[in-house]
This record gives sequence, structure tokens and C-alpha cells, in this order.
Amino acid sequence: MTSRLNFLVAARQCEIGELEQLARTSELVGVVGRLVHALQRERGISNIYLGSHGVRYGDQRLQQVLECERAAQDVLAQFDLLDTETGRVRNGARLFSRVAIVLHALDTLPALRQRIATQALTPREATVAFVRLIAGLLAVVFEAADSATDPEISRALVALFNFMQGKEFAGQERACGAAVFASGQADLPSQQQWRHLIESQDSCFQVFQDFSDAAVLAACHASQDASVRAEQERLRRVGCTARAEAALDPGLSQTWYECCTRRIDAMKTVEDVLEANLRRLCERRILQAREELRDQQAILEDLSRQAGGAGPGMPTRYGPHLERSILGMVQEQAQRLQAMSDELDTVRATLKERKVVERAKGLLMAHRQLTEEEAYKTLRQMAMNQKRRLIDVAEAVLALAQALPAGR
Amino acid sequence: MTSRLNFLVAARQCEIGELEQLARTSELVGVVGRLVHALQRERGISNIYLGSHGVRYGDQRLQQVLECERAAQDVLAQFDLLDTETGRVRNGARLFSRVAIVLHALDTLPALRQRIATQALTPREATVAFVRLIAGLLAVVFEAADSATDPEISRALVALFNFMQGKEFAGQERACGAAVFASGQADLPSQQQWRHLIESQDSCFQVFQDFSDAAVLAACHASQDASVRAEQERLRRVGCTARAEAALDPGLSQTWYECCTRRIDAMKTVEDVLEANLRRLCERRILQAREELRDQQAILEDLSRQAGGAGPGMPTRYGPHLERSILGMVQEQAQRLQAMSDELDTVRATLKERKVVERAKGLLMAHRQLTEEEAYKTLRQMAMNQKRRLIDVAEAVLALAQALPAGR
Repeated sequence: MTSRLNFLVAARQCEIGELEQLARTSELVGVVGRLVHALQRERGISNIYLGSHGVRYGDQRLQQVLECERAAQDVLAQFDLLDTETGRVRNGARLFSRVAIVLHALDTLPALRQRIATQALTPREATVAFVRLIAGLLAVVFEAADSATDPEISRALVALFNFMQGKEFAGQERACGAAVFASGQADLPSQQQWRHLIESQDSCFQVFQDFSDAAVLAACHASQDASVRAEQERLRRVGCTARAEAALDPGLSQTWYECCTRRIDAMKTVEDVLEANLRRLCERRILQAREELRDQQAILEDLSRQAGGAGPGMPTRYGPHLERSILGMVQEQAQRLQAMSDELDTVRATLKERKVVERAKGLLMAHRQLTEEEAYKTLRQMAMNQKRRLIDVAEAVLALAQALPAGR
Repeated sequence: MTSRLNFLVAARQCEIGELEQLARTSELVGVVGRLVHALQRERGISNIYLGSHGVRYGDQRLQQVLECERAAQDVLAQFDLLDTETGRVRNGARLFSRVAIVLHALDTLPALRQRIATQALTPREATVAFVRLIAGLLAVVFEAADSATDPEISRALVALFNFMQGKEFAGQERACGAAVFASGQADLPSQQQWRHLIESQDSCFQVFQDFSDAAVLAACHASQDASVRAEQERLRRVGCTARAEAALDPGLSQTWYECCTRRIDAMKTVEDVLEANLRRLCERRILQAREELRDQQAILEDLSRQAGGAGPGMPTRYGPHLERSILGMVQEQAQRLQAMSDELDTVRATLKERKVVERAKGLLMAHRQLTEEEAYKTLRQMAMNQKRRLIDVAEAVLALAQALPAGR
């Protein structure tokens, strides 16, 4: 075989190697999802425990801590399987530094739990700590999605990441609403945050829908209980539209909490379907790529035989007919890879949009001392006023910041 | 050291590994540039040889063939150095399939030269064959630029790729203009193609300027001979504005050819500067990353000592002060990598724009049976009419094509 054929095979083997890496990453995403779910429950239970001054959910909390510990051990075991040595992991630098952040946060978890047990924290402080830890875990999933080189798998990862992120906003909404009802009265900042969490959730689930096929969406739909949805919407309306300082029934706190929990648990079953799909997709693509490689190698050996022997160390000479077959194969492969790369660019544009909006939000928060909700609202208002897309406004904000002198 | 610190170090080592890959890729880009330059000369000489029916440039052609063979050997040697085994080459699948195409084209070069020697080809046919081979080589450079993970190196590669592509358009312009003058009269399609080559060239050099620092631009400026530029512009005006079928002085063909050649040779010296800069940049970034790794490891060992021993197999426990140092280091690294990735997205947007415009052009060419020039002109006209950017129009064309049923 001449070396061009070796490169043809090497290109295919690279594809297989990347798919195998993606399969391992998908496993990691799966266990991370389970830990996130366990932590979301622990956050909710800890909130009620702290809010009731240790009266309620004491045992559930201890049980859930054990559940989290088990899920965390699985995540640590998957981290240990990551190939940190050979430089084969795409996006390794960013993925590993995200892992380091998560490991740090997990190391500080016992101290956090100690302070919850002794009620040395407010529910809000505990929530913030859990939100940060879960954000770190979701950042690992984001990097995994951002490293996919196969457009179909990339789509599945983008859908899964957005679903997980949407579910996390739903979890934060549960905490936010529970705190509002428990306090017995609505205040404007909390209502603003609540509405922000609903919007963020909806936009994540919209991306999830855009990137999911009909079968997944049907499974998703089947898992939803319409009466739970209706009850949640009713409570949202009560909580979000109550006039500031108007009295709310504190008993609604538990109703709200249980309603949200049912919805979030249903989401976890959808997430499990997504993860299982992702794993199957990886397996199928690996099998397919291996088959294609075998076919290709068979054709190449066939061609070599037809071409007859050349002197040792001399490139094999093919007739014009064989030359055309080889050229066709080489070109077909390059075109297929190009098409895949183009498709990948399109899928990853969604991830890039998220990064740009996050950065613009961060910039507004730092420069104008805004909360996250206010920063998001500012961007959205600018987009509406200027009749432009959110991403365009976010890009304009970043461009403006670059044009300003540093330190301003 | 706890494992989060191992991941911190692993992230840094990934960065170094990626930089080392980039240094090797930059070497490859250097030798590819020399082969492209040699082939550009062979194309020009072959054109004159064929145009003069074998009277002129016979010896020069044979000499230039030898020159090309030497440059091709260097490229083949670099291809052999590519790591096709371990899956460590980023973007390996696409890069290797581009290499396979180049190897195929190089294999067919002896047959092309045979047909040139026996004058079995028109100058235009020979030009098309060389243009295709050079496009294949530039595609290798494009993939190299597209695989860079360091924003500074990515900028340098984007600048270099655009410079090489602009120089190639200059080479095609030399052939196009020489043919127009040699034919003794102007025709509209040739003039259209000529103007297209001038525009394409200018837009490549514009991107090159946008991505180059002042030192490179000064070197570029110093290499230019203003009188050569003026002479070229005069000849462009004569050739491009001559009324169709109006007589042109065929003697201008040689004047034009030599003027262009002086300019293109000057470009090669700029290209050499760019390549040398790129190599130095890679070396500097590798040294810097290694130093940072050493510093980081020293701090980590220091921290371990201060923390004192923990039981075997037990994670080391740090005090709150040390915890904050470690957290700071972990967060700083993640933020730095995030900032790098954001910057990289910005740099690579230019490459993506090129891909999108190329695809839209290809689509128009296929669906409406247009030449490349006509397709480009159509896109540009649409952009002007709609007051939108070229990239936006190209994206709209692709979106429309996706919405149409396949096969239409």
C-alpha cells in the first residue's frame, strides 16, 4: 500500500479513537448526572431541615447524605479512569481543570454538611454552596459536550447538557419558591429571581427540544403528569404575582416543594433515557466506523492485489481505472469529514452562544454591580429595544468591553 | 497530593502536549509552504513553455521540476513524522484525509509533467491541474490552523494561512493575466476571472493584516517594492479595462509575468518571516507552559509539606488558609483556560466564515451551474442588495438549501 492509503486508514482510525473517547465521556456524564440529582435532593432536604430549625427531615437528610456519598464515589471512580497521561483526551486541559474544581468542592462537602447539621447556616447560604458545587459538575458535562467530534453525538450531548441545566434551574426554582412561601410573604427581589429561573429553565428545555428526535420527546412527554404541571403553574402564579409584602399561606411551602419534587423526579427518568440513548448512540457509531474501516481495508487489499507487486520500497503503481477508484475513496472520505465538521460547527454554535451570553452577563455583573438576574434582564431588554437576538447583543457588549481600556 | 492537584497538573500537561503537537504542525506548514512556492513557479514556467510551443523556458522547467521534487521529498518526510498511531493529533481524521488527497495528487504529478513535456496539454489545462494540487496543500495548512488550541498560535496560523492563500491567488492572477496578454486580446470571462482573483487576494491579505502584529506588518511593508506594485497596477488596469476584442500588445505578457514574479518572490520572503515567527512563538509558549508547570509543582509540594502527613491512602487535609490557596490556583487555571477558549473561538470564527462562504459558493456552483467567480459575485451582489455581511448571506443560502428537499 502506498502511504496515501495508510493515511486514509489512519484518518478512519482517528475517528474510531475519538468515538471511543466520547463513549467513555458519556459514561462519565451519566454518573455525574446521578450525583447532580442526589445533590439536588440533598439541597432541598437540607433547606427544609434548616428552615424548620432541625425539626423536619433530620433522618431523610442523613439518608440522602449517604446516597450522595455513594454517587460521589462513582464519579470519583470515573474521574480515575480518565486518561490524564497520553494527551489523547480532546479538550483535556479544560476538562481536567473542571474536574479539579469539582474535586475541590467535594473535599469541602463534609465541612458544609457539618455546618448544616449544627444549623450554623441559613437555608440561603446552604443553597448557594450546593448551587456552586452542582454548577461545577455541570461544567464538566459542558466540556464533555464541547469536546465531541461527531455531530450526532454532539447533538445528543448538547440536548443532554441543556436538559440537565434546565433540571438544575428547576431545582433552584423549587428552593426559591419554597423559601418565598415559607417566609409567609412575597418580596420583589425573590419574585424577580423566581421569574428568571423559570425563563432560564424554559430556554434550556427549548434547546433540548430543538436537539432531540421524536422518540426522545415522546418519552419525555409520557413521563410528564399534566396535573402536576397544572398545580405547579398555579403555585407559580400565586407566588410570582403576589403583591410585595402581601401575606402568603406558609403551608403552601410544602405543597410547592412536593409538587416540584414530583416534576424533578420525573425529569430524572427522562435524563436516564437520554443517557441510555447516548450510550447506545456511541456504541452504534463505533461499530459502524469499525465496519467501514474493515470494508475500506478489504477494498485496499483488493486494489493492492490487482495492482501487482512493485519493487521493495517502491510505491505500488496502479492503472488509471484503479487510480480513479482510490481517488474516489480518498475524496469521499474528505468530503464526508468536511460535511461532519460543518454539521458539528452548527451544533456547537449553540454551546458557543451560551458561553458568549454567560460572559456578557458576568461582565455586566462585575462592571455594574448587578445580580445575575438583573444582568440577564438588561441584556434581554437591550435585545428587545434594538430588535436584535440575545447573542448579538451579548457579542456587542463583549466587543465594547474589549474596546474599553483594561481595568475600567 | 490529593487527586484534585493531580488533575491540576494533568490539565497543564495537556496544554504542553497540545503545544508540542502545534510546534510539529508548524514545521509541516513550513515545508508545505516551500513546496507550494516551488509548484507555483513550476506552474508559471510550464505555462510559458506550453504557450511558446516548447520554445521558451525548456531548461528552466526541468530545473524547476527538480526543485519541486526536493521540496516534495521534504513534505513527504514531514508527513511520515505525523503521529498517525496514538490518536494524539487533534483534528487527526480531517488532517490525515487531506494528507491522503495531497499524496494522491503528488503521485499523479509525473504523468502531468510528461504531458506538459510532450505539449499534450493547453496552458489552461496545466494551470487547472497545478491549482488543484496547490489547493490540496493549502487545505492541509487550513486543517493545521483549525486544530490550534492556543489562541496566540491560532492567530499566527490564521494569518499565515491567509497569506499563503492570498499568495496563491496572486500566482493564479499571474497565469490569468499572462494568458490574456499573450492572446493579444481581452475577453470578458477572462477579465471577470482576473478581477475575481484580485478581490480574493485582497480579502485574504486583509485577514492577514487583521491577524498580524506591527512587527510582521513592518517586515511585510519593507519587502515590498513600490515601483513593482505601481507597474503591476498599471498592467492590471490595461488588461482588465481593455474593451472586449480590443488588441493588446502580446509583448506585455512577459513584462506582466516578470512583474508578478518579483512581487510573488517578495511574498515568499514575508512568508518565511511568518513561519519563523510561528516556530519561535511555539517554542516560547512551550517553554512558558513548562515553567508554569514547574512553578505549580513547586507550590504544590510546598503545600503538601506544610499540610503534614496523612495516613497512607488518606487524602491530605489542609488548613483553611492552604485550602484557599489551592482553590485560588484551581480557579485561576480554569478561568485562564476559559479565557483562552473564548479568545480561540473569536480567532476561529474567521476560519469558520471562510468554510461557510466556500460551501455557499459550492452550492451555487452546483445548483445553478455557475463558475466560482460567478457564484462569488452572486453572493456579493446579494450582500450589497440586502445590506448584509457576506457571511450572513452565505449562511442564509445554506439554510435555504437545507430547507429544500434533497436532490433538488
